[in-house]
Amino acid sequence: MAIRKLLIANRGEIAVRIIRAARELGIRTVQVYSMADADSLAVKLADEAVPIGPPAAAKSYLKIDTILEAARLTGADAVHPGYGFLAENADFADAVEAAGMIWVGPKGDAIRVMGDKVAARIAAERAGVPVVPGSDGRVDDPEQARAIALAIGFPVMIKAAAGGGGRGIRIAHDMEEFDRLMLQASAEARAAFGDGGLYLEKVIERARHIEVQILGDGTRAVHCFERECSLQRRRQKVWEEAPSAALPQSLREKLCASAVSLAESVGYRGAGTLEYLYDDQSGQFFFIEMNTRIQVEHPVTEMVTGLDLVREMIRVAGGEPLRMRQDEIVLRGHAIEVRINAEDPARNFQPGPGTVAALSVPGGAGVRFDTMLYQGYTVPPFYDSLLGKLIVWDEDRSAAIARMARALDELSVEGLPTTKPLHELLARDPEVAAAAFHTRWLEPWLERNAHRLGTEETTE
Amino acid sequence: MAIRKLLIANRGEIAVRIIRAARELGIRTVQVYSMADADSLAVKLADEAVPIGPPAAAKSYLKIDTILEAARLTGADAVHPGYGFLAENADFADAVEAAGMIWVGPKGDAIRVMGDKVAARIAAERAGVPVVPGSDGRVDDPEQARAIALAIGFPVMIKAAAGGGGRGIRIAHDMEEFDRLMLQASAEARAAFGDGGLYLEKVIERARHIEVQILGDGTRAVHCFERECSLQRRRQKVWEEAPSAALPQSLREKLCASAVSLAESVGYRGAGTLEYLYDDQSGQFFFIEMNTRIQVEHPVTEMVTGLDLVREMIRVAGGEPLRMRQDEIVLRGHAIEVRINAEDPARNFQPGPGTVAALSVPGGAGVRFDTMLYQGYTVPPFYDSLLGKLIVWDEDRSAAIARMARALDELSVEGLPTTKPLHELLARDPEVAAAAFHTRWLEPWLERNAHRLGTEETTE
Repeated sequence: MAIRKLLIANRGEIAVRIIRAARELGIRTVQVYSMADADSLAVKLADEAVPIGPPAAAKSYLKIDTILEAARLTGADAVHPGYGFLAENADFADAVEAAGMIWVGPKGDAIRVMGDKVAARIAAERAGVPVVPGSDGRVDDPEQARAIALAIGFPVMIKAAAGGGGRGIRIAHDMEEFDRLMLQASAEARAAFGDGGLYLEKVIERARHIEVQILGDGTRAVHCFERECSLQRRRQKVWEEAPSAALPQSLREKLCASAVSLAESVGYRGAGTLEYLYDDQSGQFFFIEMNTRIQVEHPVTEMVTGLDLVREMIRVAGGEPLRMRQDEIVLRGHAIEVRINAEDPARNFQPGPGTVAALSVPGGAGVRFDTMLYQGYTVPPFYDSLLGKLIVWDEDRSAAIARMARALDELSVEGLPTTKPLHELLARDPEVAAAAFHTRWLEPWLERNAHRLGTEETTE
Repeated sequence: MAIRKLLIANRGEIAVRIIRAARELGIRTVQVYSMADADSLAVKLADEAVPIGPPAAAKSYLKIDTILEAARLTGADAVHPGYGFLAENADFADAVEAAGMIWVGPKGDAIRVMGDKVAARIAAERAGVPVVPGSDGRVDDPEQARAIALAIGFPVMIKAAAGGGGRGIRIAHDMEEFDRLMLQASAEARAAFGDGGLYLEKVIERARHIEVQILGDGTRAVHCFERECSLQRRRQKVWEEAPSAALPQSLREKLCASAVSLAESVGYRGAGTLEYLYDDQSGQFFFIEMNTRIQVEHPVTEMVTGLDLVREMIRVAGGEPLRMRQDEIVLRGHAIEVRINAEDPARNFQPGPGTVAALSVPGGAGVRFDTMLYQGYTVPPFYDSLLGKLIVWDEDRSAAIARMARALDELSVEGLPTTKPLHELLARDPEVAAAAFHTRWLEPWLERNAHRLGTEETTE
């Protein structure tokens, strides 16, 4: 192993996850931390820990210079960015390499290509990966826009070319509405971004969110099958599975092969995820975007393949070629992950940081709980609300759901509200049991079941 | 599932294990408990709990009538005996069935045959399973004894036919010693048991302990490959693995096939284990005995096969045929279990019950900790010292050992001495890494390493 000391430029459960992988590989660890995280489990578990600033991420976990200085001071020879924070910051990747250290992730240029929506779309099309039908970039001429709308079919999504984060998105269901919304959107985009350019995309209704995990060594890539993450609230995943219950085997092969092509076409190194929308009515899938980092939900893939994705990404970053052939990666059984957040489902998921008065962790066969919690730990209010990920594996999906219900029964986090009551209901829901869901299924379900979440909360 | 409510006639971690399996199958649970176990995790987790007497096992966990009465009172329709206590008591098995309930285990008669050393040996020979060469029963004539000793070869073990539990065992290395020890042993056996009858068995030196897990439905049986449990102290297993690192594949197939033959020959139902001695010099294996119950170390088999053995034994007890073909049971990776006992390795493994002041449970990929501990729990002094079983799985044996070392680092049980320091040394021992051990390897190792265990303890 070329890497001897790894700096973890992250916090929370993913920092703990990375420390575990490094330790199993015989690599020493350096944990950077903000003043809010001095008592964190990652700081306790790491071989060394270096304070990097005040709680606000902009002043600590996002400070490239300070993190690189911490790496130099401790003699770290590699940096793992986890997810979030600087994980998809190509400049950070470049800066780490410019400092003579190893970046545990893809080259900065691969991050740049896949991080740009239009460039990623072009790369996908070149690799033969289907993309959502649309304008293939900005469209300024109204007549051209109308022709494209007709060609891709309604409903059509109108987005500001210069925008981002879902701002200014409009959906037109027919040509009359389209003409009106185009004018509105263009005016609004000009006002907001100084650029009235728009682009168009087909709306995939009732789509499922399916993503393919890939691993690459810069030359060769393999897929580790797919995950389904269709249960979302406000575009945040809350329940994730591997494999997808909805994907026919022939389509699985096609989807996964397309992901490998795309990853190889950009010389991808490390762990990455290609996200797709899948229309289970038509059997069509469409590439949406690539995440050039490890993902929150990676453990479900680990449970069904037996791979340790974090160890593998460290290995390839250290210069090793991928150790496995594609046919050595075999699916076994079914895995489900639920996110245990410090949010109160009875109060519209209001975040509730606080101190863990008591903690009971589920155990037994096929159960894994990735968390940074310990009894007495105070969850700081400055970061995301993820407390832990409860992951179960079992021989098939229905057994996995029964095991999830059993494991949730055993989980107890006293002192904080958590999303456990939501997952208890989902694990007993007949539509979840039938995998009869899509990305817009959960929100109306939450409205219908609000009273039950309230009741659950009081009995907690 | 024919079973609707299962009574657990046991305590500790195995009671928790059984409750989890039952819950996943949708079966309600009744936990019986002695007054020393009123605060146990099993009592907390079970749907119902019934007190059955004072702490002494003879007055609670061994009281057949009281346990059956608890089953009647709660409407339980099945009884799971776990391991130890009444698990291999054929009369209890019969009494449960006579009371119209389901016994989660083999029929009383199968327990009787396999529980009798001589009968088991005969059954094994009939099924074509090699047994340790010996006198095939008692031998009273001195000349016949000498002829047998010559035939099987020295060293020869001389045992009292009426004895048990290792009492009165002698080992002769040549004929002169044999003649002398035969006289002594016969006189002592006559004095102790009123029966001077002896039997002879070849001593297998430097043997490895290898055992085959089987599952039967009364008609058909399958094996779930082998475990190796050669690291023993005073004949107690301390570190268990699946598969064995020492067994060539051709021999694995032969050994496992022989176990299936033997299990089918006695119409075995449930989970059982056939224990063998394996001489890795000669490549010979010899059947020793069968355990007609679930074993402490069953999780390593679960980790490498993906089966849930406790669920499967409940299913076949309920009348279901075995669900899997032999070729559907596939080995993946390597698993290791270490026993975390409330014993102080620095003080000759003196038991030390007490209260758990703080508990940190290891987590992450491939780690399972089966325990009845929780923070604040007081371990009673009346029962065995097993606190929990730390089990890891990884893609191969060396990765599993590295993961075990990592998981042990994360384990902390404050308030009690534990055997963790022993396992920390074993996980870093070069002979353990090379799997260069046998059943008599650990005890001299413990003598050589006593000072290091002492040192570890003070830093704990």
